[in-house]
Amino acid sequence: MSTAFRSCFVLIGFILAYITYLLLGALVFSAIERPVEETLKSDLNSLKAELLNLSCINATALETFLEKVLQANKYGVSVLENATVRTNWDLASSLFFANTMVTTVGYGHTTPLSDVGKAFAIVYALIGVPFTMLVLTACVQRFMHPLTYGPISMCQRRAGLQQRTASVVHFIVLLVLVVLCFFVVPALVFSTIEETWSFLDSFYFCFISLCTIGLGDFVPAEKPGQRLRALYKISVMGKISDFPISVMLVSFREYLLICTLEANKLKTYIQCCLKACEPFRIFDFSA
Amino acid sequence: MSTAFRSCFVLIGFILAYITYLLLGALVFSAIERPVEETLKSDLNSLKAELLNLSCINATALETFLEKVLQANKYGVSVLENATVRTNWDLASSLFFANTMVTTVGYGHTTPLSDVGKAFAIVYALIGVPFTMLVLTACVQRFMHPLTYGPISMCQRRAGLQQRTASVVHFIVLLVLVVLCFFVVPALVFSTIEETWSFLDSFYFCFISLCTIGLGDFVPAEKPGQRLRALYKISVMGKISDFPISVMLVSFREYLLICTLEANKLKTYIQCCLKACEPFRIFDFSA
Repeated sequence: MSTAFRSCFVLIGFILAYITYLLLGALVFSAIERPVEETLKSDLNSLKAELLNLSCINATALETFLEKVLQANKYGVSVLENATVRTNWDLASSLFFANTMVTTVGYGHTTPLSDVGKAFAIVYALIGVPFTMLVLTACVQRFMHPLTYGPISMCQRRAGLQQRTASVVHFIVLLVLVVLCFFVVPALVFSTIEETWSFLDSFYFCFISLCTIGLGDFVPAEKPGQRLRALYKISVMGKISDFPISVMLVSFREYLLICTLEANKLKTYIQCCLKACEPFRIFDFSA
Repeated sequence: MSTAFRSCFVLIGFILAYITYLLLGALVFSAIERPVEETLKSDLNSLKAELLNLSCINATALETFLEKVLQANKYGVSVLENATVRTNWDLASSLFFANTMVTTVGYGHTTPLSDVGKAFAIVYALIGVPFTMLVLTACVQRFMHPLTYGPISMCQRRAGLQQRTASVVHFIVLLVLVVLCFFVVPALVFSTIEETWSFLDSFYFCFISLCTIGLGDFVPAEKPGQRLRALYKISVMGKISDFPISVMLVSFREYLLICTLEANKLKTYIQCCLKACEPFRIFDFSA
């Protein structure tokens, strides 16, 4: 088996194992959290019905009710009429949650309610976060040549540029492409699909997700009955529609990290070669 | 000026600049967001008063009210009576928010309301995230010797251990210390101070913060009128009490990264030395 074929085989294996890990996590989260969510939802609905049955609403009753409403909302359980039909722990939503856990984005629009769910989240992230980094690093290493060395050497050969100039040109082109593909275009798409999001909101969402800050004030496909929701749901299993984007965004961060690593390695390589060959002076790396 | 003194001077300069950056960010966030928060709060209170003045509450009125309540809650503005006195954008809270932005933890329990705030958050994180990584890397580099090389060589000298055994012993001791200092002890402290947090909740909070997932379902010093709140407030400017912990936690992650980097460098060094010296075979690095 050739090395290229083997490395490709290993990469595909990694990706498949990663998808399986995400799916397994989603299934476990869904199994643990769905019944707890159902109980909380029905409790909340009973409380709401009780409040509406009161002949005259008083401040204390409203306050107690609102406390429960906000507490439930913290876990992503909404008291609103049009939100009660949908669950936060169906397969697509659980997959989205599992994905935000392992990529450390953690929007927190949905969080585990039960102690078992919290304990599982710890174990899941403990394995999932390094696993994600491993898979992304493997993917990025695979794309290093076509994305970096390839275009730079092409610039040198075709346009007759110096290596430094070629690197600068490559960096500027890459930066423009990244801003366009990971910020401007997704922001335009989100501001079209999400009715209440302005372009700034969508751009802010892309940025906050890219940095893995994940504040969770904007999460796609969360509004009930939104326009194009069906399309949204179908595309990449509903709510995880930003999965490829987030993976690509984190990949880019990893890619930058690897670029730095490669640069360090190159520097170290040159330095240690110079050191090792000092008594013989057979190579000249200083040029 | 000696190299050690200069490096120490640079590090202190970095840390001071970082603290200034956090403070400046906190001041700007506070200036932008506080008036918007005040408006939202008074709107919410008027709505609540209107609802209570209704002779008979109906489902539609309650639904509309709850929609506004949940929308405001998304930005950290609570409708509850005992929460209305406090702001999310005082200096301590803004500092806490700025810190969660630049460390990419992003609990999201408070988020910018205004467009200016969102735009500023983007610019702030764009500079702040790399700046944090730089400061942490500088700190970690400074602590590399006393934390890694020092103890390992001491193990070798004092206990007469082999380098590999010394490394394993060092790793196990470090792991136990990290689990104790960054998980068990803080979890015990949080479960004592935060009335409603169990030990698992506190441990889960520490873990979710360490991984920079930051779901935001548990955020310290957020409950109004909690026990020891005054102490909490005073210690490291109120709500940023977990600032040193989060910085140390991220430092550990960076430290691990640097360990990997060092290991890579060492491997590359050995490999390239072997390669460069192959024709002469003067060194034997394979042992």
